[in-house]
Amino acid sequence: MAMMQAVAKTTPGPGMELIRAPIPTPGPHDVLIQVHAASICGTDLHIYHWDEWSQRRIVPPLILGHEFAGIVVEVGEDVRPDQAKVGDRVSAESHITCGTCLQCRVGRRHVCENTRIIGVDRDGAYAQFIAIPVENVWRNPPDMPWPIASLQENFGNSVHTVASVDVRAKRVLVTGCGPVGLMAIPVARAFGAECIVATDLSPYRLDLARRMGADLALNPAEDDVVTQIRDLLGRHGVDVLLEMSGAPAALKQGLELLTPGGEAALLGLASGAINGLDLGNLVIMRGVTLHGIVGRHVWETWRQMRALLSSGRVDLRPIITHEFPLSRWEDGMRAMHSGKSGKIVLYPET
Amino acid sequence: MAMMQAVAKTTPGPGMELIRAPIPTPGPHDVLIQVHAASICGTDLHIYHWDEWSQRRIVPPLILGHEFAGIVVEVGEDVRPDQAKVGDRVSAESHITCGTCLQCRVGRRHVCENTRIIGVDRDGAYAQFIAIPVENVWRNPPDMPWPIASLQENFGNSVHTVASVDVRAKRVLVTGCGPVGLMAIPVARAFGAECIVATDLSPYRLDLARRMGADLALNPAEDDVVTQIRDLLGRHGVDVLLEMSGAPAALKQGLELLTPGGEAALLGLASGAINGLDLGNLVIMRGVTLHGIVGRHVWETWRQMRALLSSGRVDLRPIITHEFPLSRWEDGMRAMHSGKSGKIVLYPET
Amino acid sequence: MAMMQAVAKTTPGPGMELIRAPIPTPGPHDVLIQVHAASICGTDLHIYHWDEWSQRRIVPPLILGHEFAGIVVEVGEDVRPDQAKVGDRVSAESHITCGTCLQCRVGRRHVCENTRIIGVDRDGAYAQFIAIPVENVWRNPPDMPWPIASLQENFGNSVHTVASVDVRAKRVLVTGCGPVGLMAIPVARAFGAECIVATDLSPYRLDLARRMGADLALNPAEDDVVTQIRDLLGRHGVDVLLEMSGAPAALKQGLELLTPGGEAALLGLASGAINGLDLGNLVIMRGVTLHGIVGRHVWETWRQMRALLSSGRVDLRPIITHEFPLSRWEDGMRAMHSGKSGKIVLYPET
Amino acid sequence: MAMMQAVAKTTPGPGMELIRAPIPTPGPHDVLIQVHAASICGTDLHIYHWDEWSQRRIVPPLILGHEFAGIVVEVGEDVRPDQAKVGDRVSAESHITCGTCLQCRVGRRHVCENTRIIGVDRDGAYAQFIAIPVENVWRNPPDMPWPIASLQENFGNSVHTVASVDVRAKRVLVTGCGPVGLMAIPVARAFGAECIVATDLSPYRLDLARRMGADLALNPAEDDVVTQIRDLLGRHGVDVLLEMSGAPAALKQGLELLTPGGEAALLGLASGAINGLDLGNLVIMRGVTLHGIVGRHVWETWRQMRALLSSGRVDLRPIITHEFPLSRWEDGMRAMHSGKSGKIVLYPET
Repeated sequence: MAMMQAVAKTTPGPGMELIRAPIPTPGPHDVLIQVHAASICGTDLHIYHWDEWSQRRIVPPLILGHEFAGIVVEVGEDVRPDQAKVGDRVSAESHITCGTCLQCRVGRRHVCENTRIIGVDRDGAYAQFIAIPVENVWRNPPDMPWPIASLQENFGNSVHTVASVDVRAKRVLVTGCGPVGLMAIPVARAFGAECIVATDLSPYRLDLARRMGADLALNPAEDDVVTQIRDLLGRHGVDVLLEMSGAPAALKQGLELLTPGGEAALLGLASGAINGLDLGNLVIMRGVTLHGIVGRHVWETWRQMRALLSSGRVDLRPIITHEFPLSRWEDGMRAMHSGKSGKIVLYPET
Repeated sequence: MAMMQAVAKTTPGPGMELIRAPIPTPGPHDVLIQVHAASICGTDLHIYHWDEWSQRRIVPPLILGHEFAGIVVEVGEDVRPDQAKVGDRVSAESHITCGTCLQCRVGRRHVCENTRIIGVDRDGAYAQFIAIPVENVWRNPPDMPWPIASLQENFGNSVHTVASVDVRAKRVLVTGCGPVGLMAIPVARAFGAECIVATDLSPYRLDLARRMGADLALNPAEDDVVTQIRDLLGRHGVDVLLEMSGAPAALKQGLELLTPGGEAALLGLASGAINGLDLGNLVIMRGVTLHGIVGRHVWETWRQMRALLSSGRVDLRPIITHEFPLSRWEDGMRAMHSGKSGKIVLYPET
Repeated sequence: MAMMQAVAKTTPGPGMELIRAPIPTPGPHDVLIQVHAASICGTDLHIYHWDEWSQRRIVPPLILGHEFAGIVVEVGEDVRPDQAKVGDRVSAESHITCGTCLQCRVGRRHVCENTRIIGVDRDGAYAQFIAIPVENVWRNPPDMPWPIASLQENFGNSVHTVASVDVRAKRVLVTGCGPVGLMAIPVARAFGAECIVATDLSPYRLDLARRMGADLALNPAEDDVVTQIRDLLGRHGVDVLLEMSGAPAALKQGLELLTPGGEAALLGLASGAINGLDLGNLVIMRGVTLHGIVGRHVWETWRQMRALLSSGRVDLRPIITHEFPLSRWEDGMRAMHSGKSGKIVLYPET
Repeated sequence: MAMMQAVAKTTPGPGMELIRAPIPTPGPHDVLIQVHAASICGTDLHIYHWDEWSQRRIVPPLILGHEFAGIVVEVGEDVRPDQAKVGDRVSAESHITCGTCLQCRVGRRHVCENTRIIGVDRDGAYAQFIAIPVENVWRNPPDMPWPIASLQENFGNSVHTVASVDVRAKRVLVTGCGPVGLMAIPVARAFGAECIVATDLSPYRLDLARRMGADLALNPAEDDVVTQIRDLLGRHGVDVLLEMSGAPAALKQGLELLTPGGEAALLGLASGAINGLDLGNLVIMRGVTLHGIVGRHVWETWRQMRALLSSGRVDLRPIITHEFPLSRWEDGMRAMHSGKSGKIVLYPET
């Protein structure tokens, strides 16, 4: 049996390890992909640290990783050429959906009731090879660099978030400059934002925010965010809030700065329920709309990504701050954990 | 100086009183309206009880009342005939807006930054006469009964709420069967709801909910709401939540019953900030949208009300449970406070 | 080889005939359905008459019929139980789509570039049995009557048309009272229309329009449509036009009666290009929006139909004017051709 | 009586002339503006040539011009400081609307049934001074150059057109490179277009299109537009059509190149009704939506313009090809007529 290198959670507890695992055999509707790049998600770090959510959700042994790109090296017997062919350069939608629940049937596949996530509910892409259903394959242009192709799953969260609101000629506040927040900045710019203000507690990430195109990057620990934004934009504050931090304080401050009649898209997840949220004054009395955002629209978000990346309207290169061979995955996790990183890409040996 | 009967808050504290006040003189852009009916709003009850909000907002002496209908008896010198004429039967948008702030200019007059509310920030309609800017006048058909005409300001909250979401062929949950919740039931029906479930703690109001057309009316204090709704509608629960109660428990239960990808419109105001709201699991991870609702779209909501009422698609008569002459306003407040009432209409002497 | 009764176009020319054909064998992703009802579409009549369009599109021999309902009697080996099971009562989306073209991928399956239509591009449902891909199967409630279940493909055109515009509290004009126009009337009512006016040249169909709930049914050959609508609705005319006739004169008159800023949904197909259409004055200068409508949203339109039919909000029974056994298909075509019919349902022997 | 210089149509026939006219006196709700720049619109050229439309609409004597900017030098007695003050630098919405018709009341002021257009239905801005209702005044930032400020009325047509469709990550075809088409190019870019193709018959204007940011500029008289666009973009063609020419051939070709499920915004006015438009195949069977565009959303479009211009997202300078003192208005008309011009700005003596 042919074997491959992989990074897996082997026991229920903190940590991961580099293992040898059998190269998966694609089923009739699957493709086998040789992974050329896999990027680290915050979720992977949670699994590494074995947080509460991981303890409930992850069943070891499990190969991790759900952001990746590679080349199709084998197709199952029922895969049609218009779906995928050997040699295709592909990325993947990480949510494997049932296709038959109400959500899937009415075009809300991103909230499928039976979603299984690659690298979370089944083996993932921190490996030399992965087999996935052809329905989850997205073909990339041949000239798309591997690290950029790998980022798309995560970039899709940013694009989905920005596309869920109307940023045309609007003032936008991005609270939280982790990768999804950072990548939302050039998307908001590309989709018409007049002005983009970003906030984060990390000077490193604020610097990345500026490099990704933020007009103003503020640190709530040091700057008087409300005053500075009102000085810049007037008392209406911002028209759109993109909440990417999950921090209750950021959500509240963001809503306070939001104009009456404005829109907020919420993607950041708090660690639990939120307290002291004045829905009446911040949301109801001001006629504000809040959009909960999860996943990506399949495949509209991917189409949008293609257009943004191929046209050069969005350049994700500044966000890639670390690159390692897959065997140095632990350096990647450390960089991720340090907070002094953008996206970290791992390269399996080919 | 000609005098009139009115109900006013005369001192900063609980209570109101019947007073004699001068009949107001309309300014150049105002109309003077002889009030034929004025209905009681929950806000009036708060002012009567002199709650915290009232203490901050109300400056006595103040004639109360903002839901009313009457006949134009005098027009200011700059009022054009296409705006209003003596003899017109009219109701009024209670929010007097500036017309020049950003919100007013871009069509969001309902969140005008300089709103002054009739009967809250300036003298109101619990009186024989009221003078208001002609911009706030809405002409009614001659055959519209006075009490129905009076209810429109409040009914507009219901219509605005239902119209802010898509209820076509959807399952709708209305949490809170105060007047705005009750009036939302026939609107949801008229706009295409497949099924409407209503909840409230008051058996009296649940009975009114059934009379207004709810398919199922449940009491969370007695019924297992989650199980009954899931039994009726399946595990997806409802497609749309209309939160009309302001009760945190109702909001949380409503969101729990909402299908992934669903929509909620929030109109009910809690008495303060809300605690323990699991935005992550209830809203974000399920891709739910929340619409904060305030006021009415001026005048689109009023146009919709006209169509709903004139066509007979909505019948508001069952909700009118008490009617008094204005001088018996205190009986009205008592009925309102009892919880055993729908809408209460006061009639000034004419 | 087991044989079945079917109605087919056997040679390229006018007419059809009752044949004996082999019962189809379902492929691995197909289901075999025993047809219990199949209704006649205007398209079938075009094929019967062998019009220009048919001559270009239809390749005999071909079993006709694309509106139907039946019971699953066999499932292919790759069909999962959550997709379909033997004994399921089902109808079918008639458009077999590729799933891989841009349109399919971004949620516009109804305009798939590789659509193959049942009974047009491959064998259809005027037969005792039909095998179709499980992806095209829609499960009906057990108590849905066969003829109603059969109508859904066609009813979906009506629902899709009405749902593409906003009819809430609006005045609606339906031009053309063929089956799709007729079925649009109760849908417009259910989705909130204040008032519905229908036009057609056939008194028989205008009578059906009244039975389906039109407030006013006018014959442009006899009535002064413009004057009567303006008398009823005022000079703004209607807010929404549903053009179901394909007649250029109806389109022009409908647009003339449409309020500035109004919406029109166009489903009726003219026999060729249209002349003398004053786009400038009727559409551009009045800020009107036109929606071209084809097919159904898969499966959102079907979900809407389920809700409308199961809740009793729409009753399609009055539209079923003729029913025949499949062997009397020619009586069905004659009734269809006469213009004195609503929907005609054929019943294969079971 | 103080007199001023103005350009007017003095008799019903071709031509205009430079006249002396009384400086207008502002009414109580008016402001008097000293005009600093006025730009020429295609409509002015039609009026100059006294085409059929002008003969029906224009009643001499009439001062022309509706695109302008200037300084408020006097305000009527009822004008409030939050509306306008002496010294404000302003432009104006050219459509004076009634505020009381259905369209005005429901937020569709751009299709007001009683619109009177400045310089068309009443005296205009080809003059040293103009008095207009304060409701039509839009305040500009102090540093906005006069010619740019003047262009806004016309630029608003471009912004309104692009904003009426979704161009985010979309391929856009602009047919017709007159000023409104040209200005739509950078707006489409700013609002997220992936790629913009422009067509026109004039090499001069195609060159301007390239300078405004078109990715490809094609001449239907010389280039095989369909083939070149399909070569560049694949067989789906474009996602969005912006029809700015009014030429029937451009509309038909544009619709042919539009992807199924695509959107078109139509602003260009043909000289009469259009013939041979295959609505069935181009619009209906492909599920296309057409938006008729007129005027600007008041004031949402103006807000968007402010954001686009102040942020530098759109630079209109390349489109200003000619500038003259007002007294040389005839040189302006000639440049306009030549087709070898972008926008032409006239400067009254100050």
